[in-house]
Amino acid sequence: MTDATAIPTAAMLAIGDELLSGRTKDRNIGHLADQMTLAGIELKEVRIVADDQDAIVEAVDALSGRYTYVFTSGGIGGTHDDITADAVSAAFGRPCIYNDEAMAILTAHYQRRGVEFTSSRQRMARMPEGAALIENPVSAAPGFIIGNVHVMAGVPQVFEAMLANVLPTLKGAAPVISEAIDCPYGEGDYGALLADIQKAHPQTSIGSYPRFGADGFHSQIVVRARDRSLVEAAASAVREMIVTLERKRG
Amino acid sequence: MTDATAIPTAAMLAIGDELLSGRTKDRNIGHLADQMTLAGIELKEVRIVADDQDAIVEAVDALSGRYTYVFTSGGIGGTHDDITADAVSAAFGRPCIYNDEAMAILTAHYQRRGVEFTSSRQRMARMPEGAALIENPVSAAPGFIIGNVHVMAGVPQVFEAMLANVLPTLKGAAPVISEAIDCPYGEGDYGALLADIQKAHPQTSIGSYPRFGADGFHSQIVVRARDRSLVEAAASAVREMIVTLERKRG
Repeated sequence: MTDATAIPTAAMLAIGDELLSGRTKDRNIGHLADQMTLAGIELKEVRIVADDQDAIVEAVDALSGRYTYVFTSGGIGGTHDDITADAVSAAFGRPCIYNDEAMAILTAHYQRRGVEFTSSRQRMARMPEGAALIENPVSAAPGFIIGNVHVMAGVPQVFEAMLANVLPTLKGAAPVISEAIDCPYGEGDYGALLADIQKAHPQTSIGSYPRFGADGFHSQIVVRARDRSLVEAAASAVREMIVTLERKRG
Repeated sequence: MTDATAIPTAAMLAIGDELLSGRTKDRNIGHLADQMTLAGIELKEVRIVADDQDAIVEAVDALSGRYTYVFTSGGIGGTHDDITADAVSAAFGRPCIYNDEAMAILTAHYQRRGVEFTSSRQRMARMPEGAALIENPVSAAPGFIIGNVHVMAGVPQVFEAMLANVLPTLKGAAPVISEAIDCPYGEGDYGALLADIQKAHPQTSIGSYPRFGADGFHSQIVVRARDRSLVEAAASAVREMIVTLERKRG
């Protein structure tokens, strides 16, 4: 790490009983991870909790105090089990109110479609007093921002659209540059050698990712840093290591 | 909830920089969730943290004190960035040692294959003093159990094989019974009605899961309980609700 304090950090909180029961397989965590890396923001922690007020409040408290940005997914629909707005309001000590701007957006949306603006639909305008809206181009019902917490939908298409609207407002560092090197050996063959390379290149982060295929373990070694010349120096040391291993085998 | 204290609980801790950078998309959380539901164990929380000793220790401390079982994935390979064994040892205040039984398994495994038992491969036998092994039929290197924490590999094929070995040792409640009902309406149409059904069936958990398709939102409503007659009573109330909505439309 060169200057870790300069790199903005993030956490994600995915909310929903269905993620914990296995009924729904999360697709938002991986997407957020990709987008944070591209933006030069370091995703440090992810939590998944149930639709449970105490669990959500505790996680929002822990994560919002520790990281630059927090992103949540899920629990902002119109039914009784959607309690994210209430829980996030409680975490910030604010009343959960019907937001005027959100009510106006939803009123217009359902008017255009000739659909009744039921009390369930009105629930989707509830958020902490003083929150700012996150636009939802897919299905109108907005997300919201309070403090450093960005509250978004769980449906992946909507989550992704909301995140796309949020990303330009975030302050990211220069993106992390990475280089992936395929390695035909397992970690047992090169672990000690790779540790030496990591020691010799302290400003890079070198990860080793074994995969198990029909022909046993092979690996991908990934070098990451915020400077291209640092990545290139460590990556060529890794490639030299693989050549040396090949010679030993041959 | 009928008697929540009788239902064993679980948490998962997925460990690895690659999950947070987006390079690897987790597949173990969803699998564990499915298996816990089948076993009648309630998965209450999931966390993902980096290959960072402090982060792992903090999460293990928090989760192992709170839930019946904790399952971890990742960070037990043979390279310098695999620090799960050290971190879990630290969390339990035990020295991280080369386990004799694990050393014997690995020695025999590499002997059979005529492959050198390098120092990197030996690292895979390290675990907290007093840990019990979790057999790994895929690639030999075992996981381990210390206290209520089950430490398993990150490679999905190995994680799944280890979990299959662990499952028969866990005490699960009767599995949760669930019924899923397709609903051609969005939450805005039925949210208030569904809240009334939930109130009338307090021993069930009723979830509503909207999906966004080409024709807008439709939903699946899932009723869960530990008793089939409770599920059936609530599910037929939901089906009646849908029929009522259809009549209103028609």
